[in-house]
Amino acid sequence: MRALYFDGKELQYREDLPKPQLIPNHSVIQVKYAAMCSTDKGIIHGYKAGFKGILGHEFVGTVIESDDEQLIGKNVVAEINEGCGDCYYCNNNLEKHCPDRQTIGIINHDGCFAEYLVTANHLIHIIPDNLALEKAVYTEPLSAALEITNSIHIKPSDKIAVIGDGRLSYMIAQIINLTGADLTVLGKHSEKLALFSAFARTQMETEESYDIVIEATGSPSGIKKALSLVRSRGTLIVKSTYAEQVPIDLSYLVVNEIRLFGTRCGPFLPALKMLEQNLIDLPDIVYYDLKDYKKAFNDSRFKVGFKL
Amino acid sequence: MRALYFDGKELQYREDLPKPQLIPNHSVIQVKYAAMCSTDKGIIHGYKAGFKGILGHEFVGTVIESDDEQLIGKNVVAEINEGCGDCYYCNNNLEKHCPDRQTIGIINHDGCFAEYLVTANHLIHIIPDNLALEKAVYTEPLSAALEITNSIHIKPSDKIAVIGDGRLSYMIAQIINLTGADLTVLGKHSEKLALFSAFARTQMETEESYDIVIEATGSPSGIKKALSLVRSRGTLIVKSTYAEQVPIDLSYLVVNEIRLFGTRCGPFLPALKMLEQNLIDLPDIVYYDLKDYKKAFNDSRFKVGFKL
Repeated sequence: MRALYFDGKELQYREDLPKPQLIPNHSVIQVKYAAMCSTDKGIIHGYKAGFKGILGHEFVGTVIESDDEQLIGKNVVAEINEGCGDCYYCNNNLEKHCPDRQTIGIINHDGCFAEYLVTANHLIHIIPDNLALEKAVYTEPLSAALEITNSIHIKPSDKIAVIGDGRLSYMIAQIINLTGADLTVLGKHSEKLALFSAFARTQMETEESYDIVIEATGSPSGIKKALSLVRSRGTLIVKSTYAEQVPIDLSYLVVNEIRLFGTRCGPFLPALKMLEQNLIDLPDIVYYDLKDYKKAFNDSRFKVGFKL
Repeated sequence: MRALYFDGKELQYREDLPKPQLIPNHSVIQVKYAAMCSTDKGIIHGYKAGFKGILGHEFVGTVIESDDEQLIGKNVVAEINEGCGDCYYCNNNLEKHCPDRQTIGIINHDGCFAEYLVTANHLIHIIPDNLALEKAVYTEPLSAALEITNSIHIKPSDKIAVIGDGRLSYMIAQIINLTGADLTVLGKHSEKLALFSAFARTQMETEESYDIVIEATGSPSGIKKALSLVRSRGTLIVKSTYAEQVPIDLSYLVVNEIRLFGTRCGPFLPALKMLEQNLIDLPDIVYYDLKDYKKAFNDSRFKVGFKL
């Protein structure tokens, strides 16, 4: 089959990869749309050193083979972390933290920039009939944004800053806006910030302090900025993953009693529900053919993906 | 001036009441629209025994006199609890819990079913230009719903039931829906439940258990129902106020480790922001003249008020 394969050094377009085989409690999914995120680019540039395989983890597709008959023929999305099934984390509804997990397109599991992939049945969610597949591609990134409100109590009376004007920030800012909280989005690109101005205060600089600051720039400088903005006793939520080690001033956190949270993948069902209800604005995704992957990876438009 | 006055026994329409005088740090507001809620009816039927004065606490109006010049001529809403200004609660941003508070139309402070009322300047919020006054009347009840998410961490992955199909439930259910949580609304009136079905699962009965149950029926039987639905280690949020004492099975709470929260008035600014963004569906309010108050109090349509 056709796929984008990362050999540990560079990304390759290949047509000679075997179609994945059905294994027990799993399904074979024919990919229809797949989208790129910063993590994909990060992997190519050294984040998660060690991954070799087919890249990509945001997708919608159709189940073509499964030992769960109810799934066959259905259009689906799938959560990306598959645990061992029998450790503390797997037994406590924290499968995404299983130390032996496979993560689609990231850790020991072939991804979705391919004609087909295999995923565990319990991670699969059927897309509601009235949700377009082109929108459902946003389920995974929206769920990642929802993990913030899943992890931390955001109050309507909180004053919140989101740092970053990219794709992930756009999902996060919308989720925060729906809480009613006072929201400022800080970015470096006026043309990107314009997208946020429909619902948030947008600024390139600020002298103010915030109860909660959410770092979603993907750049280590974002963390420094974030720390300077969070008030004493406030909360810093780190959403980006970084290829490099990031030195931070821990004493500053202690003296100012700042809490720091990391959050990652989130719940799919609420994401699907919110997409179905049109609660989230979704810019169009620019789709390429797999073999044009170089153009796709260099396209800086809002969201880029592959149509299969 | 004209007003609806409660003498401790019955509500009267009067035209002989004096227009309130401006006092320091306050404003005189000319009421434009005022709306009724269950609390108004509760007061007439014995809740908050002791209140005498002009009824009503949901309103929009125009500031006509003020020692804050920036307020004069502005269309405004106002929070309803005015504290003493110098106690533990007032000093800790909890004015609404000041033991010596006045509450508009509820405790020692004339209400808004009148041509004019006086409120403290720090409780006044200017209505944004692009928010219609007819919608801004919903600020107070929406803020009461927002006090739930202000007080308690609602997760997108929570399974939540709202009990009650009335006005307050309609605000609460919409706020819960915006969190992405799984939402069921339980009611007794299929025609009222129809309004909720645009965004929530609606049922008249359920055998299921919920992580969080929100009681908003205004009736003591709602509490019994709510307790039977909340799962062990779950949370019961009580939103109604009751004229009578309500016996509950405290041992059941202990054995099942159920947390019970009461919540009341909430933050106005997020409510105004959410109304301005059209995030909340607001059924039309049926307006009466003050002198038709008997008809108004007997009108069972969704939301009833007075136009002045």
